[in-house]
Amino acid sequence: MGKEKSIGITVKKEEDMAEWYTQVCLKSGFADYAPVKGCMVIRPVAYACWENLQKFFNESISKMGVENAYFPMFIPESFFKKEQEHAAGFNPEVAWIQNKDDNQERLAIRPTSETIMYDSYSKWIRSHRDLPLKINQWCNIVRWEVQDVKLFLRSREFLWQEGHCVYETEKECEDDALQILEEYRKVAEDLLAIPVIKGEKTTKERFAGAKRTFTIEAFMPDGKALQLGTSHNLGQGFAKAFDITYMDKNEKKQYPWQNSWGISTRMLGGMILTHSDNKGLVLPPKIAPNKVVIVPIFKEENKKNIILAAKEVKELLLDFKPKIDERDYYSPGWKFNDWELKGIPLRIELGPRELEKREIVLARRDTGEKKSVKIKDLVKEVEYALNVIQDDLFEKAKKARDDSIVEISNYDEFKRAVEERKLIKTNFCCEEECENEIKDDTAATSRCILMDEKTKGTCFHCGKKAKGVVYFAKNY
Amino acid sequence: MGKEKSIGITVKKEEDMAEWYTQVCLKSGFADYAPVKGCMVIRPVAYACWENLQKFFNESISKMGVENAYFPMFIPESFFKKEQEHAAGFNPEVAWIQNKDDNQERLAIRPTSETIMYDSYSKWIRSHRDLPLKINQWCNIVRWEVQDVKLFLRSREFLWQEGHCVYETEKECEDDALQILEEYRKVAEDLLAIPVIKGEKTTKERFAGAKRTFTIEAFMPDGKALQLGTSHNLGQGFAKAFDITYMDKNEKKQYPWQNSWGISTRMLGGMILTHSDNKGLVLPPKIAPNKVVIVPIFKEENKKNIILAAKEVKELLLDFKPKIDERDYYSPGWKFNDWELKGIPLRIELGPRELEKREIVLARRDTGEKKSVKIKDLVKEVEYALNVIQDDLFEKAKKARDDSIVEISNYDEFKRAVEERKLIKTNFCCEEECENEIKDDTAATSRCILMDEKTKGTCFHCGKKAKGVVYFAKNY
Repeated sequence: MGKEKSIGITVKKEEDMAEWYTQVCLKSGFADYAPVKGCMVIRPVAYACWENLQKFFNESISKMGVENAYFPMFIPESFFKKEQEHAAGFNPEVAWIQNKDDNQERLAIRPTSETIMYDSYSKWIRSHRDLPLKINQWCNIVRWEVQDVKLFLRSREFLWQEGHCVYETEKECEDDALQILEEYRKVAEDLLAIPVIKGEKTTKERFAGAKRTFTIEAFMPDGKALQLGTSHNLGQGFAKAFDITYMDKNEKKQYPWQNSWGISTRMLGGMILTHSDNKGLVLPPKIAPNKVVIVPIFKEENKKNIILAAKEVKELLLDFKPKIDERDYYSPGWKFNDWELKGIPLRIELGPRELEKREIVLARRDTGEKKSVKIKDLVKEVEYALNVIQDDLFEKAKKARDDSIVEISNYDEFKRAVEERKLIKTNFCCEEECENEIKDDTAATSRCILMDEKTKGTCFHCGKKAKGVVYFAKNY
Repeated sequence: MGKEKSIGITVKKEEDMAEWYTQVCLKSGFADYAPVKGCMVIRPVAYACWENLQKFFNESISKMGVENAYFPMFIPESFFKKEQEHAAGFNPEVAWIQNKDDNQERLAIRPTSETIMYDSYSKWIRSHRDLPLKINQWCNIVRWEVQDVKLFLRSREFLWQEGHCVYETEKECEDDALQILEEYRKVAEDLLAIPVIKGEKTTKERFAGAKRTFTIEAFMPDGKALQLGTSHNLGQGFAKAFDITYMDKNEKKQYPWQNSWGISTRMLGGMILTHSDNKGLVLPPKIAPNKVVIVPIFKEENKKNIILAAKEVKELLLDFKPKIDERDYYSPGWKFNDWELKGIPLRIELGPRELEKREIVLARRDTGEKKSVKIKDLVKEVEYALNVIQDDLFEKAKKARDDSIVEISNYDEFKRAVEERKLIKTNFCCEEECENEIKDDTAATSRCILMDEKTKGTCFHCGKKAKGVVYFAKNY
């Protein structure tokens, strides 16, 4: 055996979540800090998760008639100024290029691509026959954040998709924005097992330049909300700013309606915060690139037979992209810890005792639970176990989230709940001024207005008539 | 019928290839100029081709054990200076960021990622057990070209993949570099039907910082060569510059060997130049996102039946991602032209006469050839026709390329061949000084040294002993 230094996480999730989170990302080999402030390296397992997410979401939007494309990363400065709210919203975060051609304006690196895409749209769209136009791009985004980088959660460069669609009517436009929100819910809940609340943003939290912003909001174990995806009904503001018009069926010139929508690598951060534990990463089976790891347990004298049997097991499980750990310079116990740290959902142990009985031991990453399984039943047992793990991860996270919700009706209760890091449900006037006061006082912000719950009550803070039932929390 | 303005290409490929090429890209909706100098918009059909290429190549490298990842786009200035040849090679093309943190150095946008990746590698690699390390990334790249943009062929921003692997021995390193070259050949020849020549670059044309550079070279119908992909044996130079070391099996510190390799969206430019014609785009079936378009031919009185039959045909052909053109405001002839412009490999015509006989007309995009086919035979006939088109496109391009090759033995013949825009095969000393003289005089450059052909002759230019059989041409 080689030397076996400790590789585990040295702080507890429940004691110092920030440090725990960083250690899980780094020590599991999921991500690394880059030598450039505010940037990160997305290592192979994380990138494979991202590719699985891309595949899942591409299938959803393809059914909606959305096509992928790629627009330039550089945006002329004047483009930002065309839509005033949008410009004001992004101005402090923009990174600029030093290189400049003679007599040309300064170029930004995209913090989001509305402006550069809509310039092309204004050339491409002429007639109602050109609508709807539904385009998405997967790309890197730069926002010159001044706060400290948090891997996946806040960084100067990150990966995302941004969809940008154009319609004849506001109804189509908003229906699609809401459909996308539902697809985002599926990415979060069905793929990553992160429970989310769907809702609408208040005026204060709305996207710069949007008429309405819809959101999916998750709630992390440290009592902070995490916005995971937004879709915007942009109204006709960008169309007017970028002169996007079409001739309708009656040969009359019209401005179309637009939506835009995005999710990012932040999703992976939410997944880690939600499911991982003090042993390391926990990957939900559906997103995990390798769903099973086979650890043969051998000594020198039986190595050949055990490895051979392990390889036969691997052949049975190819659909689950199994890894097999043949390293002979680590003990089985060290390997168990190593794969637990790396988050593979199921471990298969196979030693001489198991081989004799034609069975293996199946160990769940999430609960540690072990079970002996006959090799003849292996495929269906693995499939079953992976489904159970996926469901259990979601249910456990949902219970924790639901247990954190408190309904409050006055500001004292609100402040207490903020201190207790709760997810606060309350009646709210939804006015920007009222929300500013609350944020200044407590650092909590509104997460979303529930779309399927009406209220007849009064605002917990200003006492005026409430406009909706709203969730509040501190956020990432 | 609506108004039917002409949408076709207005110049001939054989008369003005540059203008023809631009028109094909723009009018087919494949790509567009961006409002930023030197940048382009990759529109949905082109991006879908790129996604097909990614899928094809990902499968190849996955079998070699290469994993995808993502590194930051920003590179600190000092990183470029660590490997001197590399720094000198890229310096004039680098774009820089204006934003700067206090006391931090200036940041470049990656023109290639050796330096930022190898900084991480130096942290990750400790032992021979960490090798080989095989990582690839798909990303955008910026090179601040001052020449005019040519869509896909030369632009300030483009998309590519770059693989960066680390090995214990030079043999493994170079074997993999050559294996990648073979995978690149497959992308070019088997997927895009572009014939290429595999070879090694001369000292002058070698990648900045490499020990050996291997290349696949295509030859375009205008008599210019197009470099489509390169792989480099980087030797140990970067390892030394970035202090990448590992402890070998005898606990001795060693520098590893590295290779890097890349192909880009330029491939799509090569595809257009090679196959497209005066009617517009010609997409090889294997890369085409939609391999078939069904054009129902109807009048008001039989529209319902014909469209119904067309939809049944579509159901039969789902594997080929068929499009169906139900537009009733264009004539069939206009639609034929439109889909020919857009390059879909096979057109299916279905009118009342065909419907009665339970057949359709199959029309090839590349040759215009038409054939009546019974609907019961449709699937196998379509499959067969697509294979024939793919093969014919390759063979036609290969014949044209081979017909352009001339073997020469002295400088007069060389200069005449350059003027005649030939692909020149000759004995060459491979010395940088000799090559500089030739380039200054004729603008032709060496494309590659053949790896499987030895020479005993003398250099056509300086008369010294030849080191290899080399192809020369003007290039893109």
